Amino acid sequence: MQQSVRIAPSILSADFADLGAEVRRIDAAGADYIHVDVMDGHFVPNITIGPAVVKALRPHTAKPFDVHLMIAPVDSFLEAFAAAGADILSAHPESGPHLHRTVQTIRALGKKAGVVLNPATPLSVLDYVIEDLDLVLVMSVNPGFGGQSFIDSQLRKIEAIRKLIDATGKTIDLEVDGGIDMATAPRAIAAGADVLVAGTATFRGGPDAYAANIARLRGDGAA
Amino acid sequence: MQQSVRIAPSILSADFADLGAEVRRIDAAGADYIHVDVMDGHFVPNITIGPAVVKALRPHTAKPFDVHLMIAPVDSFLEAFAAAGADILSAHPESGPHLHRTVQTIRALGKKAGVVLNPATPLSVLDYVIEDLDLVLVMSVNPGFGGQSFIDSQLRKIEAIRKLIDATGKTIDLEVDGGIDMATAPRAIAAGADVLVAGTATFRGGPDAYAANIARLRGDGAA
Amino acid sequence: MQQSVRIAPSILSADFADLGAEVRRIDAAGADYIHVDVMDGHFVPNITIGPAVVKALRPHTAKPFDVHLMIAPVDSFLEAFAAAGADILSAHPESGPHLHRTVQTIRALGKKAGVVLNPATPLSVLDYVIEDLDLVLVMSVNPGFGGQSFIDSQLRKIEAIRKLIDATGKTIDLEVDGGIDMATAPRAIAAGADVLVAGTATFRGGPDAYAANIARLRGDGAA
Amino acid sequence: MQQSVRIAPSILSADFADLGAEVRRIDAAGADYIHVDVMDGHFVPNITIGPAVVKALRPHTAKPFDVHLMIAPVDSFLEAFAAAGADILSAHPESGPHLHRTVQTIRALGKKAGVVLNPATPLSVLDYVIEDLDLVLVMSVNPGFGGQSFIDSQLRKIEAIRKLIDATGKTIDLEVDGGIDMATAPRAIAAGADVLVAGTATFRGGPDAYAANIARLRGDGAA
Amino acid sequence: MQQSVRIAPSILSADFADLGAEVRRIDAAGADYIHVDVMDGHFVPNITIGPAVVKALRPHTAKPFDVHLMIAPVDSFLEAFAAAGADILSAHPESGPHLHRTVQTIRALGKKAGVVLNPATPLSVLDYVIEDLDLVLVMSVNPGFGGQSFIDSQLRKIEAIRKLIDATGKTIDLEVDGGIDMATAPRAIAAGADVLVAGTATFRGGPDAYAANIARLRGDGAA
Amino acid sequence: MQQSVRIAPSILSADFADLGAEVRRIDAAGADYIHVDVMDGHFVPNITIGPAVVKALRPHTAKPFDVHLMIAPVDSFLEAFAAAGADILSAHPESGPHLHRTVQTIRALGKKAGVVLNPATPLSVLDYVIEDLDLVLVMSVNPGFGGQSFIDSQLRKIEAIRKLIDATGKTIDLEVDGGIDMATAPRAIAAGADVLVAGTATFRGGPDAYAANIARLRGDGAA
Repeated sequence: MQQSVRIAPSILSADFADLGAEVRRIDAAGADYIHVDVMDGHFVPNITIGPAVVKALRPHTAKPFDVHLMIAPVDSFLEAFAAAGADILSAHPESGPHLHRTVQTIRALGKKAGVVLNPATPLSVLDYVIEDLDLVLVMSVNPGFGGQSFIDSQLRKIEAIRKLIDATGKTIDLEVDGGIDMATAPRAIAAGADVLVAGTATFRGGPDAYAANIARLRGDGAA
Repeated sequence: MQQSVRIAPSILSADFADLGAEVRRIDAAGADYIHVDVMDGHFVPNITIGPAVVKALRPHTAKPFDVHLMIAPVDSFLEAFAAAGADILSAHPESGPHLHRTVQTIRALGKKAGVVLNPATPLSVLDYVIEDLDLVLVMSVNPGFGGQSFIDSQLRKIEAIRKLIDATGKTIDLEVDGGIDMATAPRAIAAGADVLVAGTATFRGGPDAYAANIARLRGDGAA
Repeated sequence: MQQSVRIAPSILSADFADLGAEVRRIDAAGADYIHVDVMDGHFVPNITIGPAVVKALRPHTAKPFDVHLMIAPVDSFLEAFAAAGADILSAHPESGPHLHRTVQTIRALGKKAGVVLNPATPLSVLDYVIEDLDLVLVMSVNPGFGGQSFIDSQLRKIEAIRKLIDATGKTIDLEVDGGIDMATAPRAIAAGADVLVAGTATFRGGPDAYAANIARLRGDGAA
Repeated sequence: MQQSVRIAPSILSADFADLGAEVRRIDAAGADYIHVDVMDGHFVPNITIGPAVVKALRPHTAKPFDVHLMIAPVDSFLEAFAAAGADILSAHPESGPHLHRTVQTIRALGKKAGVVLNPATPLSVLDYVIEDLDLVLVMSVNPGFGGQSFIDSQLRKIEAIRKLIDATGKTIDLEVDGGIDMATAPRAIAAGADVLVAGTATFRGGPDAYAANIARLRGDGAA
Repeated sequence: MQQSVRIAPSILSADFADLGAEVRRIDAAGADYIHVDVMDGHFVPNITIGPAVVKALRPHTAKPFDVHLMIAPVDSFLEAFAAAGADILSAHPESGPHLHRTVQTIRALGKKAGVVLNPATPLSVLDYVIEDLDLVLVMSVNPGFGGQSFIDSQLRKIEAIRKLIDATGKTIDLEVDGGIDMATAPRAIAAGADVLVAGTATFRGGPDAYAANIARLRGDGAA
Repeated sequence: MQQSVRIAPSILSADFADLGAEVRRIDAAGADYIHVDVMDGHFVPNITIGPAVVKALRPHTAKPFDVHLMIAPVDSFLEAFAAAGADILSAHPESGPHLHRTVQTIRALGKKAGVVLNPATPLSVLDYVIEDLDLVLVMSVNPGFGGQSFIDSQLRKIEAIRKLIDATGKTIDLEVDGGIDMATAPRAIAAGADVLVAGTATFRGGPDAYAANIARLRGDGAA
């Protein structure tokens, strides 16, 4: 069942020189999750931030840290991110041959587990892990860099995963990341998404605009 | 010729939630270089920060960013770090088979080039690149994590590199990183080092202590 | 068509100091296949045994050696295992991009070929190789270590593969490995399995219990 | 909609000592595409030719260069092949986790994009990229070496992709590569293929036979 | 200072079907160390045995297990081999960029640490770790397989390491592995070796010959 | 002892569309070796040509094919290049941990063996293989692309290797590759080189100039 829409601002678009304050600001502005993009320069051609940054940000908010691991291998880093304060840990099936073990390990660490699908990744990767997940993340751009355009073909993937999730009868977030803005957010929601990652769309206009940005993305009436 | 001692606080020990202010504080406290530890989870078993963080910090200081790349491969990331505002880029010979090309590429980007020696790395890696370097960095701990103890065998490596540098007749920094504190700093300097990386030793005691910490590490009289 | 149930004791649970005798004992106790778990520390985070061990065991039994290759790459080792005396060689689709070539090579060596599915691996990996196989192995735990619990979601995968095999009209073993014991064996068989790998469940109770253990796993009446 | 049959002679079977002339000869003999097999010794266990060879051949024909990239990683070489004069660039989903980005990059370079399926690769890899493709290449042998036999199971894959392509309503080539000769060409065409790669079958009999060979493969009446 | 000659039979040449008894026999026959060759199919093109085999053999002897790790990466397996009962753990500098960390980790596990030099590996890899070692192992054949011939150029390497060890004033074993037999053993000892690994030369002639074989290798008078 | 100067034109600068004729032309023009640059896109960021090209060129000259393998791994390709007709096979120490085995394998194939030093590679890599070599190749540019400038620091490396070779009392070619032209050739020869690889410097001016170009590079009087 599609849950109410939640917004996960990606700190990839925040001011890296002032992350603690940025996190406090998006928390106050109504962010539901704090989305963290971890890149290792191998799974994707960019390096961003690791466990020490997550740990430093932990005291600045009580909102869940929703950590997207664009790294391979991934299993050897799960414990460090859990210890640093991550709440949700999401991994790619392409990060190694043992996706079920990754999910099992995340759960054994007491954290929520997500699986991320790249734009070309087929639905079948979920066939035998869907019942063990707390979140499915659909990449609507190719991961690695911010500021890209939403890939339309992912709307039918969202629709298909919506059905798959509903068939399980379980509460599993359906999150979308990439090119989310005022134009694409309603389409993603209509397709079945209930968590939207928003980088530029959250942070544009500066701190004073964060709350309005988030409200609009969520589709709040007046906004 | 050994130059006057300079201190390069490592932001690995700073507050990652407040990096811009931390950089301004160590700048004001007398830091000579801002030392940045980049780790990719492959060359070393930890992930820290990448080019976007360097870029965000660039406006907060005019001091040189001294970037230690603990990544492999390294060549494909040089341009991003140069564009982000790095001034010195240092790489490990173990990061790939083409150390000379790495140095050549850094220089072609208009930046200063360094080579880093792990504790077990022999001096011979410098034999045919020393004349093209601006900096040699001796790791006095195994790279990957802060808070380790200084490895004594590196003192004779520092002494040997001192001679090697002096024989070139060029101005090349001899930097030491790892376990530098009030006890080890004078020994490293006596062995020939002229740039000291200091993480814990800079940041301990909080912002009010930074200036005194740096002065003491540099060996300033009254301090 | 589901064949009669056969038991493949995994020597991973045998006494590695006395493997020849262990193999003779499980042979005498009614083992149908001798199951060998080969791990290289790369495909899975454990190293077990290689071709020289298979070769040393070959004279101790005439039963088929059923060799599960948890290694990547795999193609360059097929000849060594065939020469050592393996009868069935099974590989993972994740071990490389050329699964069909692996199957082709195994057959060209005069051996039976199997494909192994990790718990999260979708059925689609079999779509265009199923007709060339002698065995499909479903992992009901994540491979790498003994003593784990059976993953229930694999029962519906076994059912689905049962249908796939029956649709080919060929004789193809459907083997299950991981957490097989008195409670799970009947469920795996009911789902369509006809070969059960059993480590702990074969060897528990010591040599005197092997025959009874195997008989019970097979579901023999009185036992 | 299946297009008229086109023939793509693979220069892997040409005389590598005389490639310019060979290309001119197959052009004159009626080749529709010039098929180039690029191998890096990693994705497949053979090394063939790279961008400099494509560039040298470019002036010898105006026919499209249809370049099959059997390399991993692939993204970092796309620009070099585009600059060398490739018209169609085809990549394997197994070459990396970002197939959509590869397709996106090829298109951004102004070239046509193809995806290649190894014999065991399931159809699902096309699910969310098919609408962005100009060509789908089905390998009817395992890539790496010439002179292998056509794998029959690929006929039903060709049929399935035919339907998938037709359902898009777009013009997308369906190319088949491996073991194409007078016996298998009609079967591949009947299954839905409209571009046939032919190595030995083009070049056998020497230059005088090229035109007749190509005509026969295409299924031209008298031939 | 060169110590008295000790013999380390390599169980690579023992009967893998009867390892416990073989270990007891070589112990009784006078073996000083039990030499274990661990290969992962990546650092060398062969797979042998892993920690579970070491663990199974541990109760069969009180002699030190001298474990040669031909694996890469190596650090992630040190704990498993230490827990399995290894006494000496030796690693190659080529197994990763952090040889000093490997040595440090072995020592932190309470084990003795060795460094292994391949036939072409220069002495300089020891320059800054020699004082932390308990053993230096010189490979006098290329590692991977038994039964190769002794490489003469390694005699001058043994001589050079003898001097290096003596200059430290510490007790460090100088072990030689590869092609050791009655003809080469005296030459290795004359060059400075004090531990000889012997596979074929220990096991040839069967169990009754082990004691005499070992005695002869050691250079015992009457023998 | 420095031998008479020989010239090895690199076909990397020849016309790849007409290689057979180019090889015949440089043979007629006085080339001593035909230098072949093999690149796999992994050891260096470029892909050039593989064994099939060497095989196709073999009938066009009786001069030795001097094959520089810029590939990693290298051992698995040695047999293919030997079978294709290579006479000298040269490998980099950075291509794997077993340089001595590579040399041993080349010799066992009945070919001459070379070791190549990148610009930053220290001399110590030769310490324990020099006596088994037929050729040492000093890279005076970073390998991967043609048209780069000679790196002066390599002159003292050439001088040092000259002494090393002379000390062996054996006939070992000392070859230099990179930026060789009329200005640098005499300097390389003066430093001790006796084989010069020349790409642009051989082929510039077109076929009519080849003989004069080669003669001048060799330092022939009138030329």
